[in-house]
Amino acid sequence: MYVEGRIIDFLDRLASSAPEPGGGSASALAAAIGAALVSMVANLTTGKEKYADVQDRIEDLVGRSEAVRAALQDLVQKDTEVYGVLAGAFKMPRETDEEKEKRNDAIQAACKEATMVPYAIAEQCLTVAELSEVAADIGNVNAVSDAGVAALLADAGAQCAALNVKINLGTIRDSAFNEEKWSGIQDILSRASELKDRVVKVTYEKLG
Amino acid sequence: MYVEGRIIDFLDRLASSAPEPGGGSASALAAAIGAALVSMVANLTTGKEKYADVQDRIEDLVGRSEAVRAALQDLVQKDTEVYGVLAGAFKMPRETDEEKEKRNDAIQAACKEATMVPYAIAEQCLTVAELSEVAADIGNVNAVSDAGVAALLADAGAQCAALNVKINLGTIRDSAFNEEKWSGIQDILSRASELKDRVVKVTYEKLG
Repeated sequence: MYVEGRIIDFLDRLASSAPEPGGGSASALAAAIGAALVSMVANLTTGKEKYADVQDRIEDLVGRSEAVRAALQDLVQKDTEVYGVLAGAFKMPRETDEEKEKRNDAIQAACKEATMVPYAIAEQCLTVAELSEVAADIGNVNAVSDAGVAALLADAGAQCAALNVKINLGTIRDSAFNEEKWSGIQDILSRASELKDRVVKVTYEKLG
Repeated sequence: MYVEGRIIDFLDRLASSAPEPGGGSASALAAAIGAALVSMVANLTTGKEKYADVQDRIEDLVGRSEAVRAALQDLVQKDTEVYGVLAGAFKMPRETDEEKEKRNDAIQAACKEATMVPYAIAEQCLTVAELSEVAADIGNVNAVSDAGVAALLADAGAQCAALNVKINLGTIRDSAFNEEKWSGIQDILSRASELKDRVVKVTYEKLG
């Protein structure tokens, strides 16, 4: 698991020409940093008398932000795994017609799987953006900038994941699948962007 | 050094109520991921016959992206250090007038130093955005989405750093310093945003 390894090793390998990790894992990690910041804002609000009224909502918030952080940490890894399956499909023999057909089917299946990982990253990014709004609205005001950073990283992570969805759609020949996924991604992007704008606005207002 | 430690330990500590790391370190790490992706695009272009014409520029690109990555990795740490100095200043005794004056002077000096770290992060983010444009324009087209992700993380990192500059300006009483830094940050943000828009556009065009 990359997240069990050192930061510098991940960055060095990302910077290299090694086939993985790639942009999908990078997006998931950036969004996981955002999720961790939502948890931080919640944890800095827990048990504070000034925020007594919102303690139940804060407890719920930290539970949800830690769940989405765990999901994103898994997706850092998952993105490298589906890349391996896809690379394997491309390397299949293609001498006979039968081999060609088998290889094409394997590529199509692997490409759909490879699409669903950045799609899931984008979905989790949207959740981080939603949670960052709660953190900015009810969390410890001294940590509001961290809610703003979380929203910015969630929105960027979703846009990064969209690029990684787009790559695969060029190879997939199932146009109904492509249309559904691309329209789903556009919806996620517009909601994440709206949330980000609102959270950044609230953050600057609270910073005064 | 945080970057020498495990990813999961950094994220766990970021998520906790521990005073550091905070949003500044988080922004620097997100931008370092972007810088690593520029290096990846360059490294996937090095030695490729199809890109023979741009090998000199690619060599220059990877040198610059690795330098900015190293700077950002240092800034992950630096942000926690200046936070420590500032927290120390706030804890100074303030019983006598002399103590109060000493404490105020220490807070003002530490706050200016604490401002300059996210300011430096924003400057490095702008450089990552500039380099991502070169990567998108001349780098291996098979890795163009990674140039796009780099641009998105650089732009988000600059916006995150701006929030962390803003926090400190509220405490600093030197209005000339505040105006200069805030106007500098606005300039960085508008340039990073323009670059990001252009790189994302080029990326989608090349992805087809």
